[in-house]
Amino acid sequence: MAKLVYMDRVAAALLAEEAKKAIADFMNHQVGNPSAHIHSAGIAAGSFVDKSRIAVAGLINAEQNEIFFTSGATESNNLALKGFLSGKSGGEIIISEIEHYSIIDQVKNPVFKDFKIQTLKVDKNGLVDSDELEKLINSETALVSVIMASPEIGTIQPIKELAKICRKYGVVFHTDASAAVGYIPVDVKDLGVGMMTISAQTMGGPMGVGALYINNTISLKPLFDGGNQEMGFRPGTENVMGIVGFGAVCEMARKKMDNQSGKLKGLGRLLRRGIEERIEHIEFTGHPENRLPGHVSFWHRFVEGESLLLHLNMKGVIAASGSACSSNLKGNNEHDLRASHVLTAVGVPEEYCSGSITFSLDYFNTEDEVEYVTDILPEIVHRLEAMSPVYEDYMKQRERDGQ
Amino acid sequence: MAKLVYMDRVAAALLAEEAKKAIADFMNHQVGNPSAHIHSAGIAAGSFVDKSRIAVAGLINAEQNEIFFTSGATESNNLALKGFLSGKSGGEIIISEIEHYSIIDQVKNPVFKDFKIQTLKVDKNGLVDSDELEKLINSETALVSVIMASPEIGTIQPIKELAKICRKYGVVFHTDASAAVGYIPVDVKDLGVGMMTISAQTMGGPMGVGALYINNTISLKPLFDGGNQEMGFRPGTENVMGIVGFGAVCEMARKKMDNQSGKLKGLGRLLRRGIEERIEHIEFTGHPENRLPGHVSFWHRFVEGESLLLHLNMKGVIAASGSACSSNLKGNNEHDLRASHVLTAVGVPEEYCSGSITFSLDYFNTEDEVEYVTDILPEIVHRLEAMSPVYEDYMKQRERDGQ
Repeated sequence: MAKLVYMDRVAAALLAEEAKKAIADFMNHQVGNPSAHIHSAGIAAGSFVDKSRIAVAGLINAEQNEIFFTSGATESNNLALKGFLSGKSGGEIIISEIEHYSIIDQVKNPVFKDFKIQTLKVDKNGLVDSDELEKLINSETALVSVIMASPEIGTIQPIKELAKICRKYGVVFHTDASAAVGYIPVDVKDLGVGMMTISAQTMGGPMGVGALYINNTISLKPLFDGGNQEMGFRPGTENVMGIVGFGAVCEMARKKMDNQSGKLKGLGRLLRRGIEERIEHIEFTGHPENRLPGHVSFWHRFVEGESLLLHLNMKGVIAASGSACSSNLKGNNEHDLRASHVLTAVGVPEEYCSGSITFSLDYFNTEDEVEYVTDILPEIVHRLEAMSPVYEDYMKQRERDGQ
Repeated sequence: MAKLVYMDRVAAALLAEEAKKAIADFMNHQVGNPSAHIHSAGIAAGSFVDKSRIAVAGLINAEQNEIFFTSGATESNNLALKGFLSGKSGGEIIISEIEHYSIIDQVKNPVFKDFKIQTLKVDKNGLVDSDELEKLINSETALVSVIMASPEIGTIQPIKELAKICRKYGVVFHTDASAAVGYIPVDVKDLGVGMMTISAQTMGGPMGVGALYINNTISLKPLFDGGNQEMGFRPGTENVMGIVGFGAVCEMARKKMDNQSGKLKGLGRLLRRGIEERIEHIEFTGHPENRLPGHVSFWHRFVEGESLLLHLNMKGVIAASGSACSSNLKGNNEHDLRASHVLTAVGVPEEYCSGSITFSLDYFNTEDEVEYVTDILPEIVHRLEAMSPVYEDYMKQRERDGQ
């Protein structure tokens, strides 16, 4: 199999070597159900889970008993909101307008019918304004949830400031840190967040595994009824193998952030500069500085993002258009084809929202790969421009204008 | 590491060689998020998921689009009840008294406060009476859920009969088939069930992976809000690696059921006979014939089940006491220490419910292993009897009675 130039880690990173090794080692052990505390095979499974719990906690400076394993970011986001708010009699929920679908769609669920939903706007760089939160928050506010870093446009929010405002009003603050953890330093104690969603798959761990950090002053109701797993917050046998892989990448992430963060940032800058210099009619999205390292996103005025992706793919390059969820097109209803709410929020005209491209690089990517991408991209763009009637009109107009 | 004599497959089987191979192979592929339909790495992941979906469907004679992957039996049971009944205005739910905690505890959840819960009794062999269902079911019945085979006592229920009664009244029937699938033939079309819970971990697949079979005439609401994964019934990125292992063991199970079912039944009989012949003061639980192959369960009048397990464990033998969930003892509240409701239901005196032992054998177990267990068990039992004050009283009484 030819090596891919893989640049879609915010949807799911390639499984890291560290995770592969840990999983292969795990498969050599004879382990049972970790709830079977009564026998050594169960206890062995529990040790694997505990070891990973320590690694996840260590990466974000949490206590071990504040980490609750889930099936991923979607479940964690649902556990944070539904679990924390269920049984509460109503009030207000404040979210940003660029949350993941598992937040945006969740607050529309009838279970929240007694809650008023308030939405924080973002500026053209995708930044939430903490003054706006200060204005919206009040004694009725039950929960605030703001995504730490947007997988689509890369912008990193001022989480510490937002959490501080929440604490001032005694309001619990949740952040979906899926795209951020492992790539920027995240310290739950320093940030002062109440709950935080973490995903294994965006940092080189297996897909479908995640965790919810829950500050030990906070309690919530589980989404499932059943056993006492995860201190009763998440019944059901743990995905032990997935958790082993998750732990391995958390251990690895700290070292990589220390040693390779500069390299990853450099690759992102190199990619951005290469695109900027060689391709016309584009606009970068997200914040120019406060952004995920190695994350480059833009839209093109005349070229369909999905066509661009297909052509890149034919050359072995993997990138994303919008979020993985919004590209989960079945094409059979309007919901599936909606323009990305994130791009709309930062002012991309709706007709161009399908023209967006996101490159999210990982620690293993190289300068050669970035150069390869910036080498092949102009030709692909020109070929697609040549096929675009809108581009043809534009060029004719430009000739008429004597430009 | 010394090889364990592992006989606790109903809590979690040892990972099968077939699953290990499939997972090791999967880890050599460069796959992305299966929702990223736009690129080849996402499509590759989707193919792995589809292949497993075909394997799971094939094992139970379902259609591919009737298999929805979940994080395991607990989630599947919650999705079946909460997902199907949410939004319904009330009525009756009928369950058996020997369901798993994820059913028994679930129906007590306040979300079901508008529903009347009816419970089907079981006889001393753990069998539900279909006549009783016929009496209870009525036009108000919203759902019937009966476990296919009890992991604790091994009894297999007359699912086809029960489902037939439900169909007659237009009532959807759900069965938790976790312990059964892969070990007895299960054909959803022949059985006529509406929904069925399946677990990977009880059949040699990874822990924390499962599926819900949903007949394609049935619709339900997801437990999570978010993406369109699993046709919208189960949002959140799939646990692709776990699903790969699940598919591999489903493929394997059909062959093993054909070739090795007789061997497994034989091992069960051998174990039962060995115990029967060499150990006094015991009572086997569950149905003598209608039971899971390779499943032997009993309780002892004078010996604590957990002590017995610990001693067995010291000799390298892994078995279970009660269900994995009820043995999830934290010892800090009454709930954790409750007697097994399954044993109480079949008439085991409450004071003996902690004396129960379950051996659940798998296809890989051998005659030598069974003989080893029946060889070491008598000595362990005698040693524990000698430590039991109740046994001492009993023996003194027996002497006085001149027996």
